[in-house]
Amino acid sequence: MRFIIIAGLIALSFTAYVQADTGYRLWLRYDPVTDPVRKELLQSLFDHVTVAGSDATSDAIRNEIRLAAGGMLGMEPVLSDQNSEQSTLVICTPGSCKMLNDYPEFITMLGIIGPEGYYIGEATRNGRKLLIVAANEPVGALYGTYHLLRILQTEGNLSSLPSYSKPKIKHRLLNHWDNLDRTVERGYAGFSIWNWHKLPGFVDPRYTDYARANASLGINGSVVTNVNANSLVLSDRYIEKVAALADVFRPYGIRIYLTARFNAPMELGGLPTADPLDPYVRQWWKSKVADLYEAIPDFGGFLVKANSEGQPGPQNYERTHADGANMLAQAVAPYGGIVMWRAFVYSAEIEEDRARQAYNEFVPLDGQFSENVLIQVKNGPIDFQPREPFHPLFGAMSQTSLAMEFQITQEYLGQATQLVYLAPMFKECLESDTYLPGMGSTVARIVEGKVHAWDQTAMAGVSNIGTDFNWTGHLFGQANWYAFGRLAWDHGLTSEEIAVEWINLTFGIDPDVNEAIKEIMMASREAAVNYMTPLGLHHIMGRGHHYGPGPWVTGGRPDWTSVYYHNADSTGIGFDRTTSGSDALSQYAPEVEAYFSDLATCPEEYLLWFHHLPWDFIMKSGKTLWEELCHRYDAGVNKVGWMKASWDGLKGKLDEERFNQVSSLLTIQQSEARWWRNACLLYFQQFSQMPFPEGIEQPEGSLEEYRNMRFPYAPGIRPSW
Amino acid sequence: MRFIIIAGLIALSFTAYVQADTGYRLWLRYDPVTDPVRKELLQSLFDHVTVAGSDATSDAIRNEIRLAAGGMLGMEPVLSDQNSEQSTLVICTPGSCKMLNDYPEFITMLGIIGPEGYYIGEATRNGRKLLIVAANEPVGALYGTYHLLRILQTEGNLSSLPSYSKPKIKHRLLNHWDNLDRTVERGYAGFSIWNWHKLPGFVDPRYTDYARANASLGINGSVVTNVNANSLVLSDRYIEKVAALADVFRPYGIRIYLTARFNAPMELGGLPTADPLDPYVRQWWKSKVADLYEAIPDFGGFLVKANSEGQPGPQNYERTHADGANMLAQAVAPYGGIVMWRAFVYSAEIEEDRARQAYNEFVPLDGQFSENVLIQVKNGPIDFQPREPFHPLFGAMSQTSLAMEFQITQEYLGQATQLVYLAPMFKECLESDTYLPGMGSTVARIVEGKVHAWDQTAMAGVSNIGTDFNWTGHLFGQANWYAFGRLAWDHGLTSEEIAVEWINLTFGIDPDVNEAIKEIMMASREAAVNYMTPLGLHHIMGRGHHYGPGPWVTGGRPDWTSVYYHNADSTGIGFDRTTSGSDALSQYAPEVEAYFSDLATCPEEYLLWFHHLPWDFIMKSGKTLWEELCHRYDAGVNKVGWMKASWDGLKGKLDEERFNQVSSLLTIQQSEARWWRNACLLYFQQFSQMPFPEGIEQPEGSLEEYRNMRFPYAPGIRPSW
Repeated sequence: MRFIIIAGLIALSFTAYVQADTGYRLWLRYDPVTDPVRKELLQSLFDHVTVAGSDATSDAIRNEIRLAAGGMLGMEPVLSDQNSEQSTLVICTPGSCKMLNDYPEFITMLGIIGPEGYYIGEATRNGRKLLIVAANEPVGALYGTYHLLRILQTEGNLSSLPSYSKPKIKHRLLNHWDNLDRTVERGYAGFSIWNWHKLPGFVDPRYTDYARANASLGINGSVVTNVNANSLVLSDRYIEKVAALADVFRPYGIRIYLTARFNAPMELGGLPTADPLDPYVRQWWKSKVADLYEAIPDFGGFLVKANSEGQPGPQNYERTHADGANMLAQAVAPYGGIVMWRAFVYSAEIEEDRARQAYNEFVPLDGQFSENVLIQVKNGPIDFQPREPFHPLFGAMSQTSLAMEFQITQEYLGQATQLVYLAPMFKECLESDTYLPGMGSTVARIVEGKVHAWDQTAMAGVSNIGTDFNWTGHLFGQANWYAFGRLAWDHGLTSEEIAVEWINLTFGIDPDVNEAIKEIMMASREAAVNYMTPLGLHHIMGRGHHYGPGPWVTGGRPDWTSVYYHNADSTGIGFDRTTSGSDALSQYAPEVEAYFSDLATCPEEYLLWFHHLPWDFIMKSGKTLWEELCHRYDAGVNKVGWMKASWDGLKGKLDEERFNQVSSLLTIQQSEARWWRNACLLYFQQFSQMPFPEGIEQPEGSLEEYRNMRFPYAPGIRPSW
Repeated sequence: MRFIIIAGLIALSFTAYVQADTGYRLWLRYDPVTDPVRKELLQSLFDHVTVAGSDATSDAIRNEIRLAAGGMLGMEPVLSDQNSEQSTLVICTPGSCKMLNDYPEFITMLGIIGPEGYYIGEATRNGRKLLIVAANEPVGALYGTYHLLRILQTEGNLSSLPSYSKPKIKHRLLNHWDNLDRTVERGYAGFSIWNWHKLPGFVDPRYTDYARANASLGINGSVVTNVNANSLVLSDRYIEKVAALADVFRPYGIRIYLTARFNAPMELGGLPTADPLDPYVRQWWKSKVADLYEAIPDFGGFLVKANSEGQPGPQNYERTHADGANMLAQAVAPYGGIVMWRAFVYSAEIEEDRARQAYNEFVPLDGQFSENVLIQVKNGPIDFQPREPFHPLFGAMSQTSLAMEFQITQEYLGQATQLVYLAPMFKECLESDTYLPGMGSTVARIVEGKVHAWDQTAMAGVSNIGTDFNWTGHLFGQANWYAFGRLAWDHGLTSEEIAVEWINLTFGIDPDVNEAIKEIMMASREAAVNYMTPLGLHHIMGRGHHYGPGPWVTGGRPDWTSVYYHNADSTGIGFDRTTSGSDALSQYAPEVEAYFSDLATCPEEYLLWFHHLPWDFIMKSGKTLWEELCHRYDAGVNKVGWMKASWDGLKGKLDEERFNQVSSLLTIQQSEARWWRNACLLYFQQFSQMPFPEGIEQPEGSLEEYRNMRFPYAPGIRPSW
């Protein structure tokens, strides 16, 4: 029997009465510290804390210090906004505190770290040591504070100081696919945390915790509405609600953004057209933007999905994406706003490999976009599959800022019932070399604006946050939110480094526990690829809800079917994207094209993404393609078994509630992995006509059973889908 | 700035670091006790606790004791399942513990209290005092334990002992209008807590807390699905999920029930008909019920909404409600199951006052229902309005068990943004005298089965529970859940007694705080009636979402409009239900009919429910009806102002988070009350053509503005409405 008791309970001693843990506190746990060395360090630091500055961000810093000191030490720190003789920790900017002028080292660093960076170092004052967190702006001081608190919770000493950091990417955003009715498209953690009905009158304290969590990672923007947009959010009544959220986010350095429904001038303004070149339409947007900035002076701008999957856009009026984006960009430019225009456009009417369409659409427009427009490109050319090659647009546009769009919510990666650590997937894309214009032009360097020196740079993550107590449905979904935020700040961090950080903050610093969890996390994504879509397979999931396997999906728009992508028949399997096929490979640099085109060099991970091959094709292992496919599926399932066993080995070393939650979900993951393997192999066997190789677990159940499974209430789908 | 930090945090001392309070713990807070007298009593009681019995319910009792002792004292109690010399508190049944035989007083009481009752008394053993909670069955011991814990938290002494209690009503149920997609019809606290997608693999610990909360009130049944039913819940895959919930509920004495969609044999079974007299249909239900009981041996039975608001039912096949109900009743009878068949049926095709239709439909069927059928009747004849007279079916059926259906969720009473304490409304109905068959036949005594000696008795409350951290959206929604449960157990409790109990458990025992909150609660329902529907007005809310005023609603089904009910025109306002009108009054006993028919005796609270009166009708106050209407609306608004001021006077005396939440919501309630007053008075003034009286706040805004307000995403509505 398990219980949750939340908040408010004060136990009398450590031994008394440990409460269950819902996971609500994320990585900002500030658990009590018992180790005497760590404790002494913390006590000496929190003795007299000066947070110079009387702005709201400095208030937020003071609050965070209070929470940290209260949690870790059970002490109320002495907090001051004035520097004093007693100060043990000083958090300040040149604007709030003259003391920095006494330390040339700090002045030098301030010249390097930019508006959002920070420098943390020790200093001496009147013979006493103190620690200084310095930044040019309060928000940098906030980021520095979170970094210091992270060091204190994980490393427990100051050996990594002095330390400085600044973000590599300018706009680091969450994209919420949240609807105004509180459903979340592709959301698996309950419903939208935005309670629009009660806003602005009731401002849920959870919004503050949301802002804290994001700020602790350096996320500085939030698009709070779905890209399948609703114009109502631009109405006066909703702007008031959005402004109330913005007020909560502002002290944490987070700007709010909205999705703009392209035909809002018609739906909301009653105009006869939404043609971006129509002067009344342009005026409507200008005036709407003026209202927005009146209510929200630091409004970030718009994210737009246009002419894609039924959304209206400039092409309805025979205008280009550039015409549409620039109209909005001009409206927000006077206020410093930006427009993020999604490259995820494709049409069933065009007889063209879907993987090629975004490139075809956007490359000709390079150079036509306003300076405050970013084209937001998904990591791969299809749609957030477990493994995709990098999107060919990266490197192909030099005069247009390209923003990265990752998906944190696990639409195709086990939703909220599977543990899949996504950092390795994000990194795989970021580290891919586009060879455009030359070797070393990795996706990361392009997005960072290093290759083409863009002024605007951005990385967006489609959020996995919902109303569930633990925010992300699966506790390990938190790691993906965390990893996205950390990589948006610094894509140079490794997946392993981020995992270790997150585990330390989430489960404590026991090295054995840590190592076990890290291994599970690091193995998880490759396991998922194997039991879902090994060897470059893609888009073979269930229709609509995308929950579970659906290699048999056919009918309707071909590019929404599975058979379109796997092309399995008696001659073989795979999507030929070489010159003999759709030639999508020609959209990459010649080096990349050659690498993937040549069966001798093409990594087997991408084999069926680019090639249609016979079932008896001989793989590097010496096995036939069919045998290898079976072995990969089986290996994926076995790996989940191993993950579950490893996790269960932690019993007693973690709090019961979080242990049990993850353990239950791993059991579900095992059965879902089996389901994927069985359904896919039984389906593909129809074409291979080959037996299951020895040594793999034989698929159970019949293909008919799997095909007949229906999930009308799987989470995350729109009723109309 | 406010923060929530939930669970898991162990502070070092009382003074250190008080966490914010989300309200999740409901009335089972077990807050630390500081008063030394109270503390000593608790310590002496929890020193050695014996919970005899090795069944799951006894485990639940032990767990509750552990939580209570841990919370209140920070101690781990010594818990045993064997009686010993050291025992200070013994919780037992005759089956688990022979000791009871030594105490004739306890044996006597066991003969009185039935299977669910309990007796708590002091006893002496070997010269030492001990406290005994005795019951015939473990579930009675559980109820007794919760009662003891309530006494300890509120009274803090044992002066009310010995104490015994047993429920007056047999089936005490929550009705969840929860859909399988997790939306909740008329739910205002987020979404459904039933995560069907993750069940049965993941069993949310919240389900246990749900069961604890209900058991603590004596609620012993839960209908987990919406009366607008979905047959899918009867499929094998969902039965497995339902069974997992039932396993959680079982130790807490809670049986699970489902809503039965009447045409499930067609939708799910593929039969060509759902005719209740068709042998294949009857066989289908028998076989389905067998499956249900195989999975859930203590399955409670079905709740059915048939031939109402588009739901299928026996009348589709020219059969009666009795035919339909009896078919299901016969299927569940061998297992001890029941069928609750809702009387809420009405049709727009019948030219008949909606208030009369249920009576017309069901009274002729009296005597035709199986013994395990209950007809579930809403408290009033329309639909959960802020004030309705009691339903004329109460008293009109003698051979049929009638169950009471109250609505805890505040569909028409401010939803989740208003503080409205509903116990006075529940009590008003329960204490109404039907005069059938004679004086003293109150609704309560009828429902209790005292008037007609029914074997089956039931009281159901439409739940206000959702995914919000505090369960009910508005913190004071908890009081309505609490009050419903307490009244279902013992309708003799007063609204005030229940309020005081709930406040003590929820906000602590400070008498000043208590008194202030009690006054707010006790005033709240009459305030809501006044600013929404004074003087017997009803059903004048916004269309579909039922949020806010809509006296102008017209068009479509007349019985879904407001004009049908208020009948305002230049000659006056009100629904004539006397002999000169719909004659709905003739459905009541002659005494009741005479009382409400005669303008001299009809209470003004019910005036316009029964009478259509001219605008210049002179009221008891000497004012005209128009003036009185204005004054009532204004008084309602003023009362909310007073509630808000009273609450704000508690600042600093409560934890900040709960104080702020309620304070924000009271501000919203003030503006919503104004909105009701302004919109209704401006609307009715069109007909009265009279000025607003002096001394009342003049309505602001224009009627047009109010009419044009749209709330497409107000919570709690079905997309199709």
